[in-house]
Amino acid sequence: MFKRSERILVPENIREMSPYVAGKTIAEVEEAYHPDRISKLASNENRLGCSPHVLNAVKEAMDEIQDYPDPASLKLRTMLADKYGVSTENIIVAAGSESVIANLCRTFFLDHEEAITCSATFVGFFVQANVRGISLKKIDPSEAYRFDLDAMADVIDENTKMIYIANPNNPTGTYITKTEFEEFMSRVPDDVLVIMDEAYYEYASEVDDYPDSLDYKFDNVITLRTFSKAYGLAGFRIGYGIAHKDLISNMMKTKLTFEPTTLAQVAAETALQDEDFLKRSVTMVNKQKERLYEFFEDHDIRYAPSISNSVMMIMDTEDEAIDFTQSMLERGVILRRIHAFGLPHCIRITIGTEQEMDHFTTSAGEVLNL
Amino acid sequence: MFKRSERILVPENIREMSPYVAGKTIAEVEEAYHPDRISKLASNENRLGCSPHVLNAVKEAMDEIQDYPDPASLKLRTMLADKYGVSTENIIVAAGSESVIANLCRTFFLDHEEAITCSATFVGFFVQANVRGISLKKIDPSEAYRFDLDAMADVIDENTKMIYIANPNNPTGTYITKTEFEEFMSRVPDDVLVIMDEAYYEYASEVDDYPDSLDYKFDNVITLRTFSKAYGLAGFRIGYGIAHKDLISNMMKTKLTFEPTTLAQVAAETALQDEDFLKRSVTMVNKQKERLYEFFEDHDIRYAPSISNSVMMIMDTEDEAIDFTQSMLERGVILRRIHAFGLPHCIRITIGTEQEMDHFTTSAGEVLNL
Repeated sequence: MFKRSERILVPENIREMSPYVAGKTIAEVEEAYHPDRISKLASNENRLGCSPHVLNAVKEAMDEIQDYPDPASLKLRTMLADKYGVSTENIIVAAGSESVIANLCRTFFLDHEEAITCSATFVGFFVQANVRGISLKKIDPSEAYRFDLDAMADVIDENTKMIYIANPNNPTGTYITKTEFEEFMSRVPDDVLVIMDEAYYEYASEVDDYPDSLDYKFDNVITLRTFSKAYGLAGFRIGYGIAHKDLISNMMKTKLTFEPTTLAQVAAETALQDEDFLKRSVTMVNKQKERLYEFFEDHDIRYAPSISNSVMMIMDTEDEAIDFTQSMLERGVILRRIHAFGLPHCIRITIGTEQEMDHFTTSAGEVLNL
Repeated sequence: MFKRSERILVPENIREMSPYVAGKTIAEVEEAYHPDRISKLASNENRLGCSPHVLNAVKEAMDEIQDYPDPASLKLRTMLADKYGVSTENIIVAAGSESVIANLCRTFFLDHEEAITCSATFVGFFVQANVRGISLKKIDPSEAYRFDLDAMADVIDENTKMIYIANPNNPTGTYITKTEFEEFMSRVPDDVLVIMDEAYYEYASEVDDYPDSLDYKFDNVITLRTFSKAYGLAGFRIGYGIAHKDLISNMMKTKLTFEPTTLAQVAAETALQDEDFLKRSVTMVNKQKERLYEFFEDHDIRYAPSISNSVMMIMDTEDEAIDFTQSMLERGVILRRIHAFGLPHCIRITIGTEQEMDHFTTSAGEVLNL
């Protein structure tokens, strides 16, 4: 198309991107392999669902669904401000953490500025930095699959505008400690923005040396949290960022006017109040994670200890990872290969219910001839 | 904050933007003025609500709400492809037309490129071009409040990358005709992208000389439509773009992975099948619009004839527009001043139900001493 033109219609950074490739859906797996049952352990969703009160809240909100959502998400932001002891001016609510990341990339970068992150972390940041045409310095993780904060601090220079850290990290489930975070921040200039993506915060927060980035009140740290994981609201697309009001006020200018949706707002408001559901979810994950560790240790399978709701299984080669994932899929266990996250020999396993994890271990036993 | 730094933390184009200012909500109007009733005629929503089948579809889809949405919206895109006789590869679905506009701005612009539009049109395009740091040539509308396509074509030059046309236009309700569209397109180089924002298509499509941009199959035209207006799904945030697959494939790379939400997708799928609701909505708008025209003509009030679900009332001065809007608000009739759209002396009135329009005319009679 557009043959008459010599001009570039699509900028190089966009042209060279690959589109997102979705995993197989439950329906597709059913049709392809007819397994007896399916356990969807691929996307770190909450396998318990979400708070049972959400359905009623959604039904009630349907009365006004023809109207635009509250563009300021004022009720939800007020609830979050109360919960964290900050002001609504410190909070932005958006269509998932990914949307806040996209917002950060389009709000703060000048063209020549750069970002630093780990090569084995959430690809959403890679994508959004790419869309903005920003160079990324991706630092390899340590041998223990952890963010190498020293190496990251070493490459900070005058072009560095943003640093992205997922803590606990996705897909590895590993984390940086309080001491590591504090030492790192002492090396970060105060005009470099540090994104602390704490999507798995609710699973991690009781770990002793896990640093809650909100405890520090750094002016240049943006803390991201989400309703997609422990709250079980991934289908609604809703997450939030907490930061200095001078950062948030600029981000409020570039967010989509009416994100997130009306139903996402009421669902999040409702979910926030159901602490019992949250507790049950975290308890289930902790218990089933221990069982999975035992299984791995009994059979000398390598894994990375995790403080999130997934565990990374470490194979020797990419081929082994491909074969294992495919054989598990044929048995109805949907897992996530994480080659896109820079770890082609690893597989991410979402921690599900007891039944789902039994399905995993039984099937893995068959596949690996244990 | 960030006092130690000389560097610019926030780029100039973002720093100089103003945040979105929302209109008063129903609750705020109730609390401030205690009117007997409230008619929300400010945001061009469908005052009949939405298809009654949507609620059931939403309830059913709640079973999987803990899972991420289908990132490709494949079922909905297939339905839309069938409806319009195109391929799914020609369609992108996103969180409202505004999200498609944002996507277009971040996907296709090189830094030095520019865009052209009318000074009195949907501000969403102004905002998104601004966020991308793109210069906009805003051409004033004609005396009849219509896009001045000749003047727009006159300013196309080697930097022009994109042209934005809302047809029918928001907030004026006016439109460009088939002949005007065809003549304009003959002057547009084939490497300049023309966004045809047809958010009000369902209200306009039966007008004889209204050009359905999809009929032309121009490789450089992107047609935008939405479920926020006639379909009554504004709270869900869902709209779509139709274009050449080489454009759509690049846009699919830069959309947020999981937009729109699960419930938005099922709501749109359901709404698409309820032609009866759509017909009732369009019939109501046409009937009540005629009644409003009569009221205006009986009292020598100026207005712009409209083919959408709103009518623009034309006052002599901005002060008159401010006074009228405020007095109507105190009577419970929420209207939209359109100073942000470049027309400070005008007011946009959404066409509502018979009762709501009676509320409008009775209140307007009091305010204007008719």
